[in-house]
Amino acid sequence: MMSTMETELVGKQTSVTIARANPTVIIGERINPTGRKRLAAELVAGNIGYVKREAMRQVEQGADVIDVNVGAAGVDEVALLPMAVQAVAEVVDVPISIDTANPVALEAALKVCPGRPLVNSVNGEDRSLSAILPLVAQYKVPVIGLLMDDEGIPATAERRLEVARKIIARAKSLGIAPADIVFDCLALTVSTSHEAALITLDTIRRVVAEIGSNVVLGSSNVSFGLPDRGMINSAFVTLAIAAGMTATISNPEHMKQPVLATDLVLGKDEWAMRYITYFRSKPKPSE
Amino acid sequence: MMSTMETELVGKQTSVTIARANPTVIIGERINPTGRKRLAAELVAGNIGYVKREAMRQVEQGADVIDVNVGAAGVDEVALLPMAVQAVAEVVDVPISIDTANPVALEAALKVCPGRPLVNSVNGEDRSLSAILPLVAQYKVPVIGLLMDDEGIPATAERRLEVARKIIARAKSLGIAPADIVFDCLALTVSTSHEAALITLDTIRRVVAEIGSNVVLGSSNVSFGLPDRGMINSAFVTLAIAAGMTATISNPEHMKQPVLATDLVLGKDEWAMRYITYFRSKPKPSE
Repeated sequence: MMSTMETELVGKQTSVTIARANPTVIIGERINPTGRKRLAAELVAGNIGYVKREAMRQVEQGADVIDVNVGAAGVDEVALLPMAVQAVAEVVDVPISIDTANPVALEAALKVCPGRPLVNSVNGEDRSLSAILPLVAQYKVPVIGLLMDDEGIPATAERRLEVARKIIARAKSLGIAPADIVFDCLALTVSTSHEAALITLDTIRRVVAEIGSNVVLGSSNVSFGLPDRGMINSAFVTLAIAAGMTATISNPEHMKQPVLATDLVLGKDEWAMRYITYFRSKPKPSE
Repeated sequence: MMSTMETELVGKQTSVTIARANPTVIIGERINPTGRKRLAAELVAGNIGYVKREAMRQVEQGADVIDVNVGAAGVDEVALLPMAVQAVAEVVDVPISIDTANPVALEAALKVCPGRPLVNSVNGEDRSLSAILPLVAQYKVPVIGLLMDDEGIPATAERRLEVARKIIARAKSLGIAPADIVFDCLALTVSTSHEAALITLDTIRRVVAEIGSNVVLGSSNVSFGLPDRGMINSAFVTLAIAAGMTATISNPEHMKQPVLATDLVLGKDEWAMRYITYFRSKPKPSE
């Protein structure tokens, strides 16, 4: 059964409710120096103008939430992450996703972030659970739970569900509600394992049926190493939404329209109002 | 359960097996004068050079089967359909889908068509069943069964299933095997009914679960009246393949890549061989 669990995010001016009955939420992924040399260089230089421009552009392109990750070699995350979060909150009204594995940087960012941000992320490793969940409880914010643990990413849906149950149990012991945990079911690349996406889709369906939580995914790993990746990512996101995914960490420039089209086909966009509105105001592609 | 029912089509040199375990079959839709003034004018003039070029181009673009429809005002289908079918068979080796509601034209085309073509189509109306199924039985060919009857297209999946059962029963009484009926579950436009696609997807799942036959769909009705239709059609085809659709009547120029991407994500393309092969030999867009 589709659940009615709701995860509430609040930004400076607007809020977003991740829920199965609502349109699919897009968390803009582009403020992340991994594989982006220019952003990494700007961050190392302490220049956050680029971060602000990326935040604004992603909102124009349809991002509902902005993910902020400043982890790069040579960057002092503890100093820079709160600065970047504040900079993003200065220029956009939407909720922020604070993306770090460093609990000290996380707390520094939580202290200055307006509204009710999403924490990205905790996983099933004991070290991660012990470091991240107390902050999630203290600041009463929702968190993404990655379905992996000390042994890496489990190969089967059943083992990923076990990690989900472990995270839920630890969260519960700290007073964190299941509705405040959004599970990332983890997508591996189909070029190395032709069943990779099927296992992820099966994991989504089981999280929805057995736990009822919201589900998030990064959409681009699935096509790693293949040509014309956008088409593969779109097909995967479409199938993931049908399976019960309620938010995607994506580049809105490429993924907004496939997400809107899928919501439309799945009956989540009466009279095609959101699709048509987007089409009418469609921004120009990035330079 | 996914069935193992197989529908075998044979062309002049190559054969195609529609089956759930196989890649999704693309039936090229472009030889159809509906809404295509130039093709209609060529057909009225009895000129089939254009038909030949469209057949060749669709095969280059990835069509596995070529649909041939010459029904237009001013065209003598009984004379022209067999001529067009022969012309297509001259220039391409793949199986042909003979697309007409006129039983006299159908028989004339069946007499000259090489291999084992697909008949497109019969529906649940008594007049259609009586006119088309005896020819299907006599020529031992497979047929598309449209899930509509004298009252039009049923609004619910349950009523569409009733039409399917009626067609199966009539076919059986003439010795036609269920594997030789491919059901078209009919896609209506989402702009006028936000549940239109959901009903079609539900019908596909029920045909697969309760009858086990192969399922075909036209992919483009779903987006009628909306902008940027390709994205909507792609999302719908992806969901339909996941629901159990095994063939699509589409424009291969636009639909080959989404179909290959979906087959890849659904584990039907080990090592991404088909996807990569297509990408390497990708044809130029039509003029």
